[in-house]
Amino acid sequence: MDLNSDLGEGFGIWKLGDDTALLGLISSANVACGFHAGDPSTMRKVCEEAARNGVRIGAQVSYRDLAGFGRRFIDADPLELADEVLYQIGALDACARAAGTEVVYVKPHGALYNATVHHEKQAEAVVNGTKAFKDLPILGLPGSQLLAKAAEAGLRPVQEAFADRGYTPEGTLVPRSRPNALLSSTDEVVERAKRLLNGEIVAVDGTVIKTRAESLCVHGDTPGAVEHARAVREALGSVTPFA
Amino acid sequence: MDLNSDLGEGFGIWKLGDDTALLGLISSANVACGFHAGDPSTMRKVCEEAARNGVRIGAQVSYRDLAGFGRRFIDADPLELADEVLYQIGALDACARAAGTEVVYVKPHGALYNATVHHEKQAEAVVNGTKAFKDLPILGLPGSQLLAKAAEAGLRPVQEAFADRGYTPEGTLVPRSRPNALLSSTDEVVERAKRLLNGEIVAVDGTVIKTRAESLCVHGDTPGAVEHARAVREALGSVTPFA
Amino acid sequence: MDLNSDLGEGFGIWKLGDDTALLGLISSANVACGFHAGDPSTMRKVCEEAARNGVRIGAQVSYRDLAGFGRRFIDADPLELADEVLYQIGALDACARAAGTEVVYVKPHGALYNATVHHEKQAEAVVNGTKAFKDLPILGLPGSQLLAKAAEAGLRPVQEAFADRGYTPEGTLVPRSRPNALLSSTDEVVERAKRLLNGEIVAVDGTVIKTRAESLCVHGDTPGAVEHARAVREALGSVTPFA
Amino acid sequence: MDLNSDLGEGFGIWKLGDDTALLGLISSANVACGFHAGDPSTMRKVCEEAARNGVRIGAQVSYRDLAGFGRRFIDADPLELADEVLYQIGALDACARAAGTEVVYVKPHGALYNATVHHEKQAEAVVNGTKAFKDLPILGLPGSQLLAKAAEAGLRPVQEAFADRGYTPEGTLVPRSRPNALLSSTDEVVERAKRLLNGEIVAVDGTVIKTRAESLCVHGDTPGAVEHARAVREALGSVTPFA
Repeated sequence: MDLNSDLGEGFGIWKLGDDTALLGLISSANVACGFHAGDPSTMRKVCEEAARNGVRIGAQVSYRDLAGFGRRFIDADPLELADEVLYQIGALDACARAAGTEVVYVKPHGALYNATVHHEKQAEAVVNGTKAFKDLPILGLPGSQLLAKAAEAGLRPVQEAFADRGYTPEGTLVPRSRPNALLSSTDEVVERAKRLLNGEIVAVDGTVIKTRAESLCVHGDTPGAVEHARAVREALGSVTPFA
Repeated sequence: MDLNSDLGEGFGIWKLGDDTALLGLISSANVACGFHAGDPSTMRKVCEEAARNGVRIGAQVSYRDLAGFGRRFIDADPLELADEVLYQIGALDACARAAGTEVVYVKPHGALYNATVHHEKQAEAVVNGTKAFKDLPILGLPGSQLLAKAAEAGLRPVQEAFADRGYTPEGTLVPRSRPNALLSSTDEVVERAKRLLNGEIVAVDGTVIKTRAESLCVHGDTPGAVEHARAVREALGSVTPFA
Repeated sequence: MDLNSDLGEGFGIWKLGDDTALLGLISSANVACGFHAGDPSTMRKVCEEAARNGVRIGAQVSYRDLAGFGRRFIDADPLELADEVLYQIGALDACARAAGTEVVYVKPHGALYNATVHHEKQAEAVVNGTKAFKDLPILGLPGSQLLAKAAEAGLRPVQEAFADRGYTPEGTLVPRSRPNALLSSTDEVVERAKRLLNGEIVAVDGTVIKTRAESLCVHGDTPGAVEHARAVREALGSVTPFA
Repeated sequence: MDLNSDLGEGFGIWKLGDDTALLGLISSANVACGFHAGDPSTMRKVCEEAARNGVRIGAQVSYRDLAGFGRRFIDADPLELADEVLYQIGALDACARAAGTEVVYVKPHGALYNATVHHEKQAEAVVNGTKAFKDLPILGLPGSQLLAKAAEAGLRPVQEAFADRGYTPEGTLVPRSRPNALLSSTDEVVERAKRLLNGEIVAVDGTVIKTRAESLCVHGDTPGAVEHARAVREALGSVTPFA
């Protein structure tokens, strides 16, 4: 199982999350590219630290929305969105190459991640922007338009699961505005990780969902997040990047 | 003689200059990278049109300053500035590669261009940011710190001259805030181009300056600019990119 | 009939529309407040010129989206949106007062205008943000949630019509992405203005819609826009601000 | 003695400093206005909390530089800078009025504060932008151009001292890039506060500087900052806003 997390989500003077702690635990770092968070120096430093830790780098592409941290749906024109994705991957890849590594996958952030579950045009935009850069794997929610469009375009779709998010019985994430959106106890996230090794996720109502998730996402920006990540990593035993 | 011009300097709904007309005349396009102007879609379209016209692409890197169009000195930290340069080149290169071409040189824009004439640390920052991407040639003012630092770092320094700017007897540009900053008549810019083929520039006081400029810059965003560019191109006869 | 238009929609070096020409024709200027367009100096200058022309100033509030010119729906949190509206009105009012005048109404721009036709929460947000500043009239589409919420909150709702936009038989605007979104001939916009004096708008399919619009909007940023505005002004005879 | 501090310096998801703790200690809050930090919702909330605590609100105006947190000198055009100051005060005043209070003074932030010690044109710009809003007192460094220009323009200049910054024997601040820029021990800041009540500041070399400072600035964004502020407040006994 691959373990991924969002990194480099500060901006200028502002910091968010404990990148250093997470880089000792994960196998894949989704690095912010400057559109929802991440300035060039932060990006380069995270890439350098990821390289030192043997952690792979993915482009965490987003709507252009620093004020909203990319968490608000924007009805972006698909052609423009594709170009924004391309721009972000290119900028991050330059930082990664300067650190002796490179961008090896793409994962949309926040509202763009959620939108591309159902929004065909925006899902295609993310795929097209990625493909315009290179045929990189795309991380996304199982059953999402994003992964369907990626497969259609000849990109490798990588299903991911979330260590600390509540699931609906349909296998979608409980929205952040709802109760049970976040698993709060370490026991719960450890249980999630263990079940996942058996291809299962337990929804908020107890429904067992079958999954082929190859990557598990842990967050680092909430209280206790690093503790959760550490517990998840232990529960998984070892982590291996998706092929 | 190479002929270069600043392109892609709109942002979102706002346009600036006549990129299409200039692309029919020049050999090297300095494309804005999103920090003083240029959104991803504009960047990609300019790259595509440049590729169709056989025009080479350079990264017109800038301070982060959309509101000031990169024309205001910013006392940026050199390490951060280097990373911003790297980010911008990478973003543009992604757009260029999607258009079947690539970034083959770097030229700082506006206040960064002017600052790096004398400001050693910022000159080094531009060079370091460029080198972190790739060993690309750097365009700049003869005698500038920028070209000196580029040479020291093993990058090819390319001296450029300006078709429509007034020169002081010392060979620097008359600041935009002063009279004679801009040559306004077509005759003057044509004369500038012709003298340049003989390695000479005539300053505002008549002093003849010897120059080894390999590239001539024409602007496209002022009234009559395209007419000037056309006249310059005719005066030069043919244009050939610097090697 | 009041005649309103969007002004001050440049940003930094970039210009849009012919503010000076329009200020000689209209009675109410919707001035951009920096979120979709408009920098402080542009805002102050437009306010000064409006004051000299006896034209009243309204705050043209928008989503925070310079890259998209406020033309993309953003799923903004209503509380944050209300605060953004308040911020924008305050900033513009300072510019207006420095010019000896003040903000006397509010009109949302672009996607926020369109969203608040149906989106109750965002309509309330615009009303709440306005009310937090002062009990100002709000301009909007007849039948919109925006005007309904304004009325509920004790603000004066002002219905407006558009001189150059196609109407559906239901009285809504034909989206910009569709044919007939814009009336292109001067004859059509003159006809629109004349019918409006009789309380009528003719939809794209010929349906006659009854309207109580008190203000007519002309645009200034499209080719021929000022000609249209001039013809509309002539057709109206005189213009008088809504009370 | 008045006690002032910089507040509301987060942006969107990012937080900085402990506003709530400081609001229980200070008499004057310098609230960020969105140009170096501060989004509309943060601004409004800080104003509300300040009002509840009986703390007065000042506009902490800045260069437009979120990426650099307003800590980098920008060679801004003085006319544009004045308009940016006006815009920021207006925006904050709207938030303050919505909270039942108002902006009663102005204090430049970061690099603008430092620049206006010596830079006459930018000092005038801050004064002119303030005066265009209202004749508000301006907080600044004793001996600065800023306070001189404020006095010339008929605004009340208010001298301030810093609780946690090292002073040169000339009475200027030791730059942040140098050793001794910050007093690190609680004892030192308490000593600073006590000496200040007698009109004295002790420079890094032991020189005793006479001062008429009426306001003392404590910072809230560094480790231990709130502890320092608490100790300073105790040392001062009571705090009273400058008249």
